[in-house]
Amino acid sequence: MKDKITLAHGNGGRLMHELIKRLCLKFSNKILDEMADAAELEVSKKSLAFSTDSYVIKPLFFPGGDIGKLAVCGTVNDISMKGATPLFISLAFIIEEGLPISVLDKITQSIKEAAKKAKVLVVTGDIKVVEKGAADKIFINTSGIGVIDHSGRHIGAKAKAGDAIIINGPIAEHGMAILNAREKFGFVSNIKSDCRNLNFEVRKCLRASRNISVLRDPTRGGLATTLNEIADSSNLGIEIHEDKIPIRPSVKKMCDILGFDPLYVANEGKFISFVSAKDAQKVRRALGGSARVIGQVVSGHKKSVHLNTKIGSSRILQTLESDQLPRIC
Amino acid sequence: MKDKITLAHGNGGRLMHELIKRLCLKFSNKILDEMADAAELEVSKKSLAFSTDSYVIKPLFFPGGDIGKLAVCGTVNDISMKGATPLFISLAFIIEEGLPISVLDKITQSIKEAAKKAKVLVVTGDIKVVEKGAADKIFINTSGIGVIDHSGRHIGAKAKAGDAIIINGPIAEHGMAILNAREKFGFVSNIKSDCRNLNFEVRKCLRASRNISVLRDPTRGGLATTLNEIADSSNLGIEIHEDKIPIRPSVKKMCDILGFDPLYVANEGKFISFVSAKDAQKVRRALGGSARVIGQVVSGHKKSVHLNTKIGSSRILQTLESDQLPRIC
Repeated sequence: MKDKITLAHGNGGRLMHELIKRLCLKFSNKILDEMADAAELEVSKKSLAFSTDSYVIKPLFFPGGDIGKLAVCGTVNDISMKGATPLFISLAFIIEEGLPISVLDKITQSIKEAAKKAKVLVVTGDIKVVEKGAADKIFINTSGIGVIDHSGRHIGAKAKAGDAIIINGPIAEHGMAILNAREKFGFVSNIKSDCRNLNFEVRKCLRASRNISVLRDPTRGGLATTLNEIADSSNLGIEIHEDKIPIRPSVKKMCDILGFDPLYVANEGKFISFVSAKDAQKVRRALGGSARVIGQVVSGHKKSVHLNTKIGSSRILQTLESDQLPRIC
Repeated sequence: MKDKITLAHGNGGRLMHELIKRLCLKFSNKILDEMADAAELEVSKKSLAFSTDSYVIKPLFFPGGDIGKLAVCGTVNDISMKGATPLFISLAFIIEEGLPISVLDKITQSIKEAAKKAKVLVVTGDIKVVEKGAADKIFINTSGIGVIDHSGRHIGAKAKAGDAIIINGPIAEHGMAILNAREKFGFVSNIKSDCRNLNFEVRKCLRASRNISVLRDPTRGGLATTLNEIADSSNLGIEIHEDKIPIRPSVKKMCDILGFDPLYVANEGKFISFVSAKDAQKVRRALGGSARVIGQVVSGHKKSVHLNTKIGSSRILQTLESDQLPRIC
């Protein structure tokens, strides 16, 4: 099966990163090679952030959102992780013949509301229709453009030794909400996706500190995979503390029962900031009540992420390997 | 079936335009409402063109191109139709589980070559994998950014009465090549898709004349549908002359036998320029040997396109109605 695409090639984990590296090699250029969620472009001496994502989530509607809201927030967030202000998005639908127009209307209404909330304009679009069975109801691609103005700061892929790591709230809600909606386990009904636009929270961070090195949203592959990417690109080690990582009891319970590690479950409204230790509390306070300092960057154990557990031991967190949950975004 | 999406909602014709208008109303803003193939943005006092398209063509490989080449050229061309210079593209794959990696490699190689030829950089991307049966092999979205510098000129949606209409070469090749490849009619083997990047040809036009009002590539829906769109948005009439419209004999023959009207068959390497009559020959010469002046804009019969036939009669060309050929791009 090594010569065929598998679901694991899309799960945010190791195989996906190998595939992305393979593609990046093919198209190699200075901008792409940064391999960030958004590209940083210089156009007429202005720095722009440019990002694209396709959304294939199943089911289309889930507690806390739907494919439309997700398609706006996901791209807005990728742009925000460059420290950019998202301004414009494109909207491209691939629709399976037979989709009720009422479903499309519900999705576009939700796109409209999400775009309004995030203060981005939908400025261009495309519609393709394929015959029954050639797609699963509807797929949406959004691409987005933002402007970067850090006044000399650079938000990139490289953290600094000593940086504190701050998360803006509890993890694993999106993945568990999708699983619950999809499999109809009928688990506790209050598990909702955290799907939301992060651009204004990111602004607060950037206003609170000029010493932010990396911003990143831990979506596919979860917090553990995202931290591994950053440890890797920074050539530094990362330590996080299990007892500091916020997670709601209902989400924790669902993960425990089903055997999911919440550190690998997708988020759609969370981001981590890497900030110099002296500014950590300022940034945490700026983010409000549910933000937590969860760890720090160390110069030891380069390219690896260590979890200090509640019982006082330490274990290495690898990049996501096998697929936990396909089509969660 | 009025409440469900049909293939005709994606064919470039009347139903698709109704659906697009419905969506544009929802997201209405000054930029989107222009309903051009690319949006014109102002970012920090610079004008940018921004465009998106998803490609769902079947088969993936066809004489004259493949989905990869098409995905680059299609978006490059949409940006070029704004008179902009395309610079950057994004690349988002939706892949069906089980796709041989060799197929993906072949497609990405072709993307690489097309991007090089069009002088655009692939700067950001995304990969989603869906389970078997949830997509048809591979879909690609490309979005693109270009810079607009017409030094005060505006290339828009409105033609002027008296404008000459120039096409850069023979029509209907893409659609017929796809049909031939898909249905394995085994028709004359020399029918190739005209799929190619048009940015440099557009530059030549813009250098030859400062009096170009509209540029447009007649893809889905063909030349007749594109002309109707322009007659409509300009609130003017259009007249074209059957004997002036270039078409290769093999393509004409295939259309005749199968009952296709070549004026409604998709092109992927053609564009029409609307240019003041006095500059028409200059622009035609700049475009080279196969370019032709095919008609003109008139102030009579507003919002309608008339075809003067070879036998001396005249008929109205409507917008494409029923679907001739799904998934041709």
